Amino acid sequence: MAEPLRVGVAGLGTVGSSVVRILGAKAEELAARAGRPIVVTAVSAREKGRDRKLPLDGVAWHMDATQLARSNDVDLVVELIGGAEGAARGCVETAIEFGRPVVTANKALLARHGLAIATAAEQKGVAVGFEAAVAGGIPIVKALREGLSANSLNRVFGILNGTCNYILTRMEREKLGFAECLADAQKLGYAEADPTFDVGGFDTAHKLALLAALAFGVAPDPDGIYVEGITSITPFDLAMAEELGYRVKLLGVATRTDSGVEQRVHPSMLPKDAAVARVDGVTNAVEIDGDVVGALVFAGPGAGGDATASAVIADIVDIARGLRMPAFGVPAASLAAPTRAPMSRHEGGYYIRLSVIDRPGAAAAIAARMAEQGISLKSIVQRGREPDSDAPGVDPVAVVLITYATAEAALRAALDAIEADGHIDGAPQVIRIEKR
Amino acid sequence: MAEPLRVGVAGLGTVGSSVVRILGAKAEELAARAGRPIVVTAVSAREKGRDRKLPLDGVAWHMDATQLARSNDVDLVVELIGGAEGAARGCVETAIEFGRPVVTANKALLARHGLAIATAAEQKGVAVGFEAAVAGGIPIVKALREGLSANSLNRVFGILNGTCNYILTRMEREKLGFAECLADAQKLGYAEADPTFDVGGFDTAHKLALLAALAFGVAPDPDGIYVEGITSITPFDLAMAEELGYRVKLLGVATRTDSGVEQRVHPSMLPKDAAVARVDGVTNAVEIDGDVVGALVFAGPGAGGDATASAVIADIVDIARGLRMPAFGVPAASLAAPTRAPMSRHEGGYYIRLSVIDRPGAAAAIAARMAEQGISLKSIVQRGREPDSDAPGVDPVAVVLITYATAEAALRAALDAIEADGHIDGAPQVIRIEKR
Repeated sequence: MAEPLRVGVAGLGTVGSSVVRILGAKAEELAARAGRPIVVTAVSAREKGRDRKLPLDGVAWHMDATQLARSNDVDLVVELIGGAEGAARGCVETAIEFGRPVVTANKALLARHGLAIATAAEQKGVAVGFEAAVAGGIPIVKALREGLSANSLNRVFGILNGTCNYILTRMEREKLGFAECLADAQKLGYAEADPTFDVGGFDTAHKLALLAALAFGVAPDPDGIYVEGITSITPFDLAMAEELGYRVKLLGVATRTDSGVEQRVHPSMLPKDAAVARVDGVTNAVEIDGDVVGALVFAGPGAGGDATASAVIADIVDIARGLRMPAFGVPAASLAAPTRAPMSRHEGGYYIRLSVIDRPGAAAAIAARMAEQGISLKSIVQRGREPDSDAPGVDPVAVVLITYATAEAALRAALDAIEADGHIDGAPQVIRIEKR
Repeated sequence: MAEPLRVGVAGLGTVGSSVVRILGAKAEELAARAGRPIVVTAVSAREKGRDRKLPLDGVAWHMDATQLARSNDVDLVVELIGGAEGAARGCVETAIEFGRPVVTANKALLARHGLAIATAAEQKGVAVGFEAAVAGGIPIVKALREGLSANSLNRVFGILNGTCNYILTRMEREKLGFAECLADAQKLGYAEADPTFDVGGFDTAHKLALLAALAFGVAPDPDGIYVEGITSITPFDLAMAEELGYRVKLLGVATRTDSGVEQRVHPSMLPKDAAVARVDGVTNAVEIDGDVVGALVFAGPGAGGDATASAVIADIVDIARGLRMPAFGVPAASLAAPTRAPMSRHEGGYYIRLSVIDRPGAAAAIAARMAEQGISLKSIVQRGREPDSDAPGVDPVAVVLITYATAEAALRAALDAIEADGHIDGAPQVIRIEKR
C-alpha cells in the first residue's frame, strides 16, 4: 500500500473532534477506500490542556494554525476554525502556499475569498475540498461539481440553515411566535446566543454563494445576494400559507435569468406538496433543476459534528485517492464575475399581508393600485370580524393577497402607492412565492 | 489543454443517442470541466442506415460492439447495448482487456458479472463507471462510492423502478386495478410489452445488487435477493394502507443484520410521512442510513434518455479528469462473498389481509394462531357488512391485521396454521412494513 497521507487538523471544536475520532476509529476501512492509510499527525487548538478524549498520542500540537499549515509533518490541512479572516484564512492560505491540499467546512471564508483561494490552489496544483461547508452531511458539492457535469443548471435552491427551519417548523406546528421558538432553539443548542447570523439569513447566503459558484460558474459573492431573514414571520402568515396551499421556508435560491444569476435568501412560500416544502426541523434540502437530468432533490442533516465530519472525511479520502480538480469544478480563471441580477427585476408570485384600516373604499383603493401596476390577484382573503358584527370596527383588519407572477418593481410601486393612500396601518408583509 | 479523450459509444438507442447529442452540443463546457476535449470517435449500432439526427460525420462505424472496443480509435468505451450476456458483455470485457475504461448503464451485466468485471478492470488499472445503472439521473453511485466514505451503512433502500411506482401511484390515486394501470403505463412508454422484468421486481433487484455492493462491500449477487413484484397488490390494499397511515411502494432494501446483508425486493408499507413514501409517479428515491451522517434521501428521475445520459456523461468526465478507483469503491478482492441472509429470519411488522369465511369462531381461531407464534397485533380491521345486516353472510369478509415486529418464520407458521384451520378462503396477502 502507498505512503500514508498525513493530516493536520486545525480546530478541535465539535467537528474537529469528530473528524479526529472517526479517522482513528475507522482507520482500516478508510485506508481500503483511499488506497493508503490516513493518519492525523498534527492538530492545533486554543486550549491544549482540555481533555477531549481523542486519540492524540504522538500527534504534534501547534498553538497556531498557520504554524500547523507550514509544518513538514502534514500533507493535507483540515481547517475547522471558522470565520472569514484571522486564523482560518491564514491557515488555509499558508497551506496552499506550501503546496498542501486543504479541506474546510468554512463557508464564510470561501464565500468571501473563494476566488482567490481557488486561484492560488490551482497555481500550486492542490485540491480544496469544502463539501462540509454547504448542507452539512449531504454530498451536494460533489453532486454539483462532478455528478451533474453534463448539465447546465437553471435553478438551485434549498433549505440551507437548520436553525431557521427548526424555528419555522415549530411556529407552524404549535402556532407559537418567533421569539419563543428561537429561545427553544437556543436551549437545544440549535441556535447561537447571538442568532443574527442564522435567523437573519446570512449563513444561508454564504452557503448559497458557494452553491451558485458551483452551479453557474460565477465567482462567489455574498455581498451581491439579496438577504432577508425570518424574524418578521408570524404564526398568522404560516396559518394563511397553510390555508392557501403553501408552506413557508427560508430558502436560498440561485436562478439563471436574462440579467445574470439572481441570488436571493428570503422566506419563501412553496406549494405544500413540493419536495423541499415537506422537509421539517433541522434537516436541510437542496433541489437542483438541470437541463439534461431534470429535477433532483437531496435531503439530510445540515449540521452537527458527526454529519459535518462525514463530509470532511469524504473530501480527505478523495484527496488521498488522488483527486485534484479546480475547487469550483472549472478553472478559477473561467469563473464569471458575479452579475448581481437586481431584485427589482425578480419575477414571481407574492403573498402580501396588509393591515387595512376598516372603512369604506379601502379594498377598492388597494385593488385599484394593484391594477394600475398591471398586477393580477389570484386570491384575496379578508376574514370578517365576529359573525354578529354589523359594522366595521376601529382596529385594522388583516387582508391577504396572492398575486400572479409580476415584477418586483411593479409590486413595490403598488405597495408604495397603497401606503401613501393611508388605508393601511404599518408596513406590508411580503413573502415571495417560489415555483415548484 | 491536454489530449482529447476519444469516446466510442456502443448502442445508439434512446440513451446512446442522447449521449452522442449532448457530448456534441456541450463540447466546450465539458472540456472546461474535464480539462480536455471529449470527442466521440466511434459508434456501433445494429442499423447503420437509420437517420438518428446525430452529429456523426467523421465518426467511425462498427457493426460489432466488440470490434469497437478493440479499435484503436477509442480511449474509453461507453456500453449502452443492455443485457447481461452477448454483445454487451463482449464489448465491456474486450474494452477492459485492451486497457480501456468503460462507462455503462447496464445493471443486468454488472449485477451478474460485476465482481469479474471489477477484478479485470483493476488488473488493467482502468475505471468502470456505472452511475447510470442505478436510479438513472440521481448521482447515487458517486454518493455511496465517494461521498459517504466515512460511513458504515446500516441500510440502503428505495424506489428503483419508475414503472412500478407509476402503477402504484395511479392505482392509489384513482382506485384502479393493477392491469388497467399497467396498460396505461405501456401506452405511455413507461412499461415494456413484456412487463415482467419491471413489475416482477427483477429490474429493482439488479439495481439493489449494485447498491448493496457499494454500500456494504459485498459482491453483487442478484440470485441471492428475495424478490416479489407488485402484481398481487389490489386497490383495497392501497386504501387500507392509507387508512392505517401507510403508503405502499415497491422497495429494494439492503440491510446489515447479524446474519449478513439482507437484500430484498417486495411491496412495502412505509409510514406515509416518510420521505421515500411521498415520492410519486416515475420518480426514483433512495434513502441511505449511515452511522456517521444519519439519514440522507436522494430523489429524481430514474429513467429516460436524457436523465440516464446525464449520469453516463458525468462518468465520462470523471474518467477524462483522471478518476481511477475500484468499481465498487474498495478493491474487488476485498468484496465479501454475498451472505444471503434468509428471509425466514427477517424481522419487521406485517400487513396481512385475509379473506375470512364469516362464521362464529373464525376471528378467535385466527387470533389464537397468531398468539401461539408470539405475534402481537397492532391493529385489526374488519369492516362489517351493510349496516342493516344482522347475520353473517355467505361470502368471505376481508380482515386486515397489522402486526408488531416479528420474525418472518413465525408469521409464516401462523399463516400456515390459519390456512389449515379452514377459516380462510384463498392465500393471505402479506405486505411487509418498512421502518422509517
